Amino acid sequence: MITSSPAFVVPVPLDKSYRLLNHGPTVLVSSAHQGRTNVMAAAWSCPLDFNPPKVTVVIDKATYTRELVEASGMFVLNLPTRAIAAQTLALGTESAKEVSNKLDKHQVKTFQASECEAPLVEGCAGWLVCKVVPEPHNQATYDLFIGEVIAAYADERVFSAGHWHFDGQPDALRTLHYVAGGQFYVTGESLQVAA
Amino acid sequence: MITSSPAFVVPVPLDKSYRLLNHGPTVLVSSAHQGRTNVMAAAWSCPLDFNPPKVTVVIDKATYTRELVEASGMFVLNLPTRAIAAQTLALGTESAKEVSNKLDKHQVKTFQASECEAPLVEGCAGWLVCKVVPEPHNQATYDLFIGEVIAAYADERVFSAGHWHFDGQPDALRTLHYVAGGQFYVTGESLQVAA
Repeated sequence: MITSSPAFVVPVPLDKSYRLLNHGPTVLVSSAHQGRTNVMAAAWSCPLDFNPPKVTVVIDKATYTRELVEASGMFVLNLPTRAIAAQTLALGTESAKEVSNKLDKHQVKTFQASECEAPLVEGCAGWLVCKVVPEPHNQATYDLFIGEVIAAYADERVFSAGHWHFDGQPDALRTLHYVAGGQFYVTGESLQVAA
Repeated sequence: MITSSPAFVVPVPLDKSYRLLNHGPTVLVSSAHQGRTNVMAAAWSCPLDFNPPKVTVVIDKATYTRELVEASGMFVLNLPTRAIAAQTLALGTESAKEVSNKLDKHQVKTFQASECEAPLVEGCAGWLVCKVVPEPHNQATYDLFIGEVIAAYADERVFSAGHWHFDGQPDALRTLHYVAGGQFYVTGESLQVAA
């Protein structure tokens, strides 16, 4: 349950939550533990299962996020929109280990869900609240974390009834796909193929 | 090395190969073993590491591809373009276990690289030839395969010097991002954010 939130944020049924991530957007990983909070960008996140819904995300050992995820056993995947592309790049470039006021510096606004201490980032199009499925070998060898999605939310302007509908909405609400060197691709035109 | 190929296919240096997959496109997984060949669509594939480059891909136990990948220890991730969206949907819907002539039925054209028996699919924008890194627990529990990229190729019209450049090229050459129910998003506008 959203306990304080911007407009347009609605719950997504868990059985449809994979569709938030299925098109391969870049994510912001947020985490918190005992009052310490961080948000970092990650391009390497992917659905892993439908039911119960699971995801994978790569979280480097050098990151502050890694400490918070391992300590709390939780993380949130936030799907940034074009409107916050510059923040997304900054959150993926700077480490909270070096820039301790990283979130304030980049004016990252957040809200809370009842399922976790980790904040949800405003300006995103979807949110997946995840509980770590402990896999010590994957975490140690590959920096690969598996999460079970325990709650999901979306901006109803672009996702409702289990489907994205970016077309006809402001381009600022489209999700992002990172390449490298500050270059993103924006999620483009919808293409319906007859089965 | 490409041993028979359509025009425009060029090698990609391994240290830049993650960029083919970084923006989260849907892939076609091709595989072969002792003369048996298959291609299936998969939305759940992701980079895992830079050097050596590694990827993850989810391959369900029920698929024919799973048999071929486990037998050969190899797979190719092909990045389909808009031009072959209908083929991509068909290759993700039909199983070679039920439709034994699946590739012929959908007029899938392929070419070969020297690194593997698995075919490379024409009409794609990039190709990652991968050797399975055996992780029996992940494979059995999550259908999750890790591959080390041992060779990579791209269509030089849309990827060169380590970067995608879809803008200015025909939309038919853009990559795809699958959602569900035959709906894709095409990779959209490029957005350069100053660091």
